[in-house]
Amino acid sequence: MVRNMKTDESNNNENFVKNRSKILTNRSDLTTFFEPRSVAIIGAVKSVWFGGLVILENLKNLGYNGKVYLVNPSYPEVNGIKVYPSVKEIPDKVDLAIIITSSKAVPRIVKDCAEKGVEGAVIVADGFAERDQEGARLQQEIVDISKKRGIRLLGPNTIGVVNPYSGLITTPYPLGYKSIRKGHVALAAQTGIIGAQAFPFEELHYGISKICDFSNKCDVNETDLLEYLEDDSETKVIAIHIEDIRDGLRFIRVAKRVVKKKPILIYKPGKTSESKKALASHTGSIAGDQKIYEAAFRQAGLIQVDSFLELFQTAKAFGYQPLPKGNRLGIITITGGAAIMAIDTAVEWGLELGKLSQESNERLFEIHPTMVGNPSDIGPAMPAIQDPIAPYKTALEVFSEDKNVDCMLITFYAFPGVNPELYVNLLKETAGAKEKPVVVWIYGPSNEEANKIYSTLEAADYPAYFSIEMAVKALGAMYQYTQIKSKLIN
Amino acid sequence: MVRNMKTDESNNNENFVKNRSKILTNRSDLTTFFEPRSVAIIGAVKSVWFGGLVILENLKNLGYNGKVYLVNPSYPEVNGIKVYPSVKEIPDKVDLAIIITSSKAVPRIVKDCAEKGVEGAVIVADGFAERDQEGARLQQEIVDISKKRGIRLLGPNTIGVVNPYSGLITTPYPLGYKSIRKGHVALAAQTGIIGAQAFPFEELHYGISKICDFSNKCDVNETDLLEYLEDDSETKVIAIHIEDIRDGLRFIRVAKRVVKKKPILIYKPGKTSESKKALASHTGSIAGDQKIYEAAFRQAGLIQVDSFLELFQTAKAFGYQPLPKGNRLGIITITGGAAIMAIDTAVEWGLELGKLSQESNERLFEIHPTMVGNPSDIGPAMPAIQDPIAPYKTALEVFSEDKNVDCMLITFYAFPGVNPELYVNLLKETAGAKEKPVVVWIYGPSNEEANKIYSTLEAADYPAYFSIEMAVKALGAMYQYTQIKSKLIN
Repeated sequence: MVRNMKTDESNNNENFVKNRSKILTNRSDLTTFFEPRSVAIIGAVKSVWFGGLVILENLKNLGYNGKVYLVNPSYPEVNGIKVYPSVKEIPDKVDLAIIITSSKAVPRIVKDCAEKGVEGAVIVADGFAERDQEGARLQQEIVDISKKRGIRLLGPNTIGVVNPYSGLITTPYPLGYKSIRKGHVALAAQTGIIGAQAFPFEELHYGISKICDFSNKCDVNETDLLEYLEDDSETKVIAIHIEDIRDGLRFIRVAKRVVKKKPILIYKPGKTSESKKALASHTGSIAGDQKIYEAAFRQAGLIQVDSFLELFQTAKAFGYQPLPKGNRLGIITITGGAAIMAIDTAVEWGLELGKLSQESNERLFEIHPTMVGNPSDIGPAMPAIQDPIAPYKTALEVFSEDKNVDCMLITFYAFPGVNPELYVNLLKETAGAKEKPVVVWIYGPSNEEANKIYSTLEAADYPAYFSIEMAVKALGAMYQYTQIKSKLIN
Repeated sequence: MVRNMKTDESNNNENFVKNRSKILTNRSDLTTFFEPRSVAIIGAVKSVWFGGLVILENLKNLGYNGKVYLVNPSYPEVNGIKVYPSVKEIPDKVDLAIIITSSKAVPRIVKDCAEKGVEGAVIVADGFAERDQEGARLQQEIVDISKKRGIRLLGPNTIGVVNPYSGLITTPYPLGYKSIRKGHVALAAQTGIIGAQAFPFEELHYGISKICDFSNKCDVNETDLLEYLEDDSETKVIAIHIEDIRDGLRFIRVAKRVVKKKPILIYKPGKTSESKKALASHTGSIAGDQKIYEAAFRQAGLIQVDSFLELFQTAKAFGYQPLPKGNRLGIITITGGAAIMAIDTAVEWGLELGKLSQESNERLFEIHPTMVGNPSDIGPAMPAIQDPIAPYKTALEVFSEDKNVDCMLITFYAFPGVNPELYVNLLKETAGAKEKPVVVWIYGPSNEEANKIYSTLEAADYPAYFSIEMAVKALGAMYQYTQIKSKLIN
């Protein structure tokens, strides 16, 4: 039996056909990994909390629009679905294999796939170079097959890829949710914690274009991905975590080219000798000197961040908001103390406080004296004029219109009973706010209210943060790219 | 009418009486601010979303065990509660006044309070030195009254204090929740974002001993608070945010003394000239040179952190867990990539990876080869042995018992349908885990599951984090204190 998971969205199919045509123009072609028309899940398909059956369920939940086949020689069917004894027995073309077996079985399966004409394989199976000598030998064996037969390999030891535009997902863990928002951030990492099983993507409304976990990267690596994403029309920003780079010159050359088209954010752990030792046993990486990496990244125009959460959180602002034209930050706050914390971070990231015009300050003064200046503190105005929303409205209008402000940080307070739509509408209805990037810091006494505001903002393309420093870093990273771009293009 | 909010908990009253006796031993006596037997709320009591009526409601919700009086000359009662025209008309003794009026009215009211014999006043009202020249003049006026009449002042422009042990709270914002867990962390700041209106304390199960917002600190300051907390038996750790220190020598002298008894964590923004300018208009502070501050803090044995969230998040580990005896960290992870990120942070904070004994590694190997070593990666073991809990159990036992490990970071995965009790029981049932501090990093695809694990852990005194770096910083801060203490006492 052939499982067909095509969705009703005809748009999906159109995009799908359109994207397939890019195969001709891509330098390093990973189309088969992100836009396969059919996949075969090869290996364990019985456990309900890990493995092939979970992948099948995830594909169904995300509405994968291609064909899915199961392969396992041990049984002829599972849950009424036909299981083929070998990938070679599948009567139709298979674009992508997902292999989740013991490591020992993988070389034989990769060979079968190559013979069948499968273009790429995601090797979810672990127990390769990250494990021991025998694993390293097995890894070399599949690399040799890959080179000889032309089949491309992702992993091993990977959760693979996600493409919310086609519903493709290869993670073998249950998600507990059913959708990932189609968006513009490509997340890539040399670890599975970038995956759909690691973040509540549905609740976050985080807009994804592609997710890719390289892990052991025996074949497909970060540079291949950059080349693929360079021309991926859904991707506006690339956020990448790497533990090592094996062909540094090629990476830098390609990155320099890609950065002219879209920003690349990068996080590389391994600063200390202790973490370098751990890297070696994680993915078999040899980390090299962190300072050399950092200098090379800077030279290539990459934006460097300091933690995985920073990578994740700064990237989304690029996916939602326009770039700032300059570095002059405007802060609308309801607490003076927090604004000061934000300023330290802003300056570290190259931003400065915009100096409001005389006219702007006069308009703010009309509402309440504490609102004058930048940061504009609307906190005392709210009780003073008995209105929690009007001060926001004026401040947003003033900052949006003032030519001395390039980007804005606004604080939304999650007070009990607040209607999140109020906040979103404030932003939507302020015309000037569309041309300057806005980030939001949310704080307040209730997780529930705060989460509601967060969701509503993110769904409307306003990046929201529970850490004020992170909110500012996002603007700082965007400003860095404004500078990088102007240097590279001029 | 006198509103009496005594709760049924007789323990509360016993503690209350016991604590009052400390008045004789405290060097700088803030007892009246944290343990008043009666309070008068003076000023606006009509608005339902800000002001005196909200304070009344908050006191009721938190079960304040003293008497509460309302004062306002404009009306004789509100919601059936008598409103006195002046504090002087209240027939009983008033320990603490909470003043929330226009700034102009404050000097007169402070004078009335002093005449009535009120010992302290929390000045929630704003519009003082943080506003303008006239405000600065008014502030000086109340300082003069305070000095002359002996009444102590907190603020102005403050959300004041919280003491969950007596149910005292002075914040004029609605909270939307009804309890703050009694615990051992004293939070203090020169801003209101430390307050009960700013964090979902109830949901977090964050154990608080006292909260104090100095804001303009026209009288009561950080050093006074340190002296009070030095002998406060509920406080095990002091987490303090300051924008400036006006009597640096006294602060350092007192801090040095207090640090011998309990750790002090400190966060001071104002690193940049831009933030220093903003400081001046926030609380009228003159920030001074950050490097001089940092050197003085180091010399006094304070533990310095880099952000407000870091202050908040590292402090709780001290409130829950024992101090580590040394700096050797053990990491139990389910993702190799995340462990590497943790190591970089650990080394920055003075920790190193403990080298497991031969016996420990043998025990880990019996479960699964990837578990050998530190970090111990139990991720691949779970599907391999078809059991998500057994690898945790063995790893926790091994790390707890191994003499080469002083503190532990463990990762809990919030997979769909997980029972949070499983995780808490794992920790509780591992005898060795009681003598070494443990912090937990939680990650997974569902906020709901993750939050459930978080709550269950925190309620059982295991500090939980959604950022792996923050989890490690908490252990690093604890190790710093182990070192500080041994230097100071030896």
